[in-house]
Amino acid sequence: MTDDTLNAFVPGPRCQVAGALKGPLSGLDFAVKDLIDVAGWPTGGGNPDWERAHPVPSTHAWVVEQLLSAGASIIGKTATDEVSLGILGENPFTGTPLNPAAPERVPGGSSSGSASVVAAGVCDFALGTDTGGSVRVPSSFCGLYGIRPTHGRLDFSGICAQAPSSDTVGWMARDAAVFARVGQVLLGEPTPAALPHTLLVALDAFGFADPAVAMALAPMVERLARIVGTRRDETLAPQGLSVWKDAQRTLQSSESLKTFAPWLDRFNPRMQYGVARNLALAGLITDTDRTRAALMREEARARLRLLLPPGVILCLPTTPFPAPSRGLSISDLAFPRERITCLACLGGLTGSPQVNLPGAVVDGAPVGLSIVGGRGTDNALLAVALAFGS
Amino acid sequence: MTDDTLNAFVPGPRCQVAGALKGPLSGLDFAVKDLIDVAGWPTGGGNPDWERAHPVPSTHAWVVEQLLSAGASIIGKTATDEVSLGILGENPFTGTPLNPAAPERVPGGSSSGSASVVAAGVCDFALGTDTGGSVRVPSSFCGLYGIRPTHGRLDFSGICAQAPSSDTVGWMARDAAVFARVGQVLLGEPTPAALPHTLLVALDAFGFADPAVAMALAPMVERLARIVGTRRDETLAPQGLSVWKDAQRTLQSSESLKTFAPWLDRFNPRMQYGVARNLALAGLITDTDRTRAALMREEARARLRLLLPPGVILCLPTTPFPAPSRGLSISDLAFPRERITCLACLGGLTGSPQVNLPGAVVDGAPVGLSIVGGRGTDNALLAVALAFGS
Repeated sequence: MTDDTLNAFVPGPRCQVAGALKGPLSGLDFAVKDLIDVAGWPTGGGNPDWERAHPVPSTHAWVVEQLLSAGASIIGKTATDEVSLGILGENPFTGTPLNPAAPERVPGGSSSGSASVVAAGVCDFALGTDTGGSVRVPSSFCGLYGIRPTHGRLDFSGICAQAPSSDTVGWMARDAAVFARVGQVLLGEPTPAALPHTLLVALDAFGFADPAVAMALAPMVERLARIVGTRRDETLAPQGLSVWKDAQRTLQSSESLKTFAPWLDRFNPRMQYGVARNLALAGLITDTDRTRAALMREEARARLRLLLPPGVILCLPTTPFPAPSRGLSISDLAFPRERITCLACLGGLTGSPQVNLPGAVVDGAPVGLSIVGGRGTDNALLAVALAFGS
Repeated sequence: MTDDTLNAFVPGPRCQVAGALKGPLSGLDFAVKDLIDVAGWPTGGGNPDWERAHPVPSTHAWVVEQLLSAGASIIGKTATDEVSLGILGENPFTGTPLNPAAPERVPGGSSSGSASVVAAGVCDFALGTDTGGSVRVPSSFCGLYGIRPTHGRLDFSGICAQAPSSDTVGWMARDAAVFARVGQVLLGEPTPAALPHTLLVALDAFGFADPAVAMALAPMVERLARIVGTRRDETLAPQGLSVWKDAQRTLQSSESLKTFAPWLDRFNPRMQYGVARNLALAGLITDTDRTRAALMREEARARLRLLLPPGVILCLPTTPFPAPSRGLSISDLAFPRERITCLACLGGLTGSPQVNLPGAVVDGAPVGLSIVGGRGTDNALLAVALAFGS
């Protein structure tokens, strides 16, 4: 599988930046989602009218700087859904990256190219962003470890914002050890030796996934329970996963439109119809809608604080099904998109860290199991991933 | 001024088709808006995802067939706003054609390339379509004769539809004699020798235009009155030009979305944000809105039947100002667009024929005077244009 076949790097000269000679990530190379600044290289944002509206950055994003200083080297910038607005990874401007694990299917997005190059073995790990699922969903669809850190834990400077109250930067890797090593650098702490003691199984989320997915994930849940210790079944969202989804959609869409409105107005950019339509319809959201959604967000956060004291983690299917086929119509994908968001909304809504563990296969395509901890327990989740992947 | 400088022809090999050896239009050449089929040439529609969704036509549009049979030859296909949805002529995919009469300003649209090549003298005349002003507005902005025929008078087969109850195909020319000759072929009647006897001056429309435009058009109105005979001041739209505009916007937007919805859904095409947004918001129009608009359309039609018995024509400014500058923001153009539509809505709403007469200049840029007749009086308007242009 050549780089060109993947269609995962952005067009044009390949961005390559050597890391520091010595450091904890020496010998590792990584790719950078094209929403994240690398000094001296344009940040394309997955849209032909984004780059021309923004100067070439003169400094690295914080996260890029940390990784280069730790010895990892950049091998390229990767495709993304337009300005992060998409969950499937289909982009008609730069092309849709290949899902190496399921070539007839979408890679997932918006960190589509990052997932593609890591899954293909082109580099050791890759950076993505995750506002509403953009690291977790492609990790599930391509069969990778992937983390959405606690909201606000990693400095977001030098990265294209979408919805600031949900935006995070994360990473993906094939190998659990590499995955954890990157975390030690970015989180600034060693991966703890002690593991959580209790695993909650989110019954409502497993029930919401396709039965084949719940069945395929069951052995992973068993294995996780053995690693952690106690297992308990729980309802994640008493108000309903779809109610949480609505709240997150309202808040994220409102913030997205606010973020992009000046660009839309000034440049009238070319966009996929579906992306433009969602932005346009976000303009109809009212203050009443936003207030109602913000109250539900408080309820969701309270629920997670109740469920996840220190030492307790929760698991759920990362996506309700494996990756859909490439090239489906907007209407064919409308309901699947909403279903994906019902499981993925948790991260953006509550700010809790979430890690996708690869391992299950349905209809020949990967699907992942997510573990979630209380805010700030990123390292504990990496420790579980390391134990799980060993 | 070279063809390349104009940026008015569609990219790729130039469509050239010789007309019949002998015929009433022998020796004339013309350009074809890229929404109109020429057999063997793709119909691009001004959007990169339109062409791939539609087969190369195997037959000419009716109007193209008539002109070729009459001896005129095609010299190229011309740029258009995306799938006819635009009034200014700015297109980021194929580029915005030059307005040869005012190079710093937009050419007007959606028949932008057709207006550009005729104004530059590259060919004798050009075909356009006019649903909400797409022949009349670029004719005004580029200083050309241009006609929107009576709705339904010319066969529309082989042309990309937008809003069928308003869609028409028309043409533009620099020279009044050429303009009338084309009409004889397409309308199938000689230009009459007798002229209308009464000219109505639409006071509300002149009042609605910029004062500088009304002033610049005054000598043209005087000249027209001398040619026709009697002159009388009248109110065109007792309910309000903006009320007529709202009705036309509601009906046209609803029909546009219905026309394009299958394509949007299946291909999720790349579009300018502003175009996509308008389509998306059209989905919010209710049956009640449509009924109200259809009733106002009946009132507007009744008004024109009352005002325009045989022998009476009406004049108004074609546009309320000359062409705006190129490259303005969506919000800068929002109100100007609505103002343009207040004067242009008449054609689509009532189906009456309308001809733009060039001749006035404001701030160094052209602006035109429109004449309107009752349904079916296309030839009488051409006779007036011929008398006016001689």
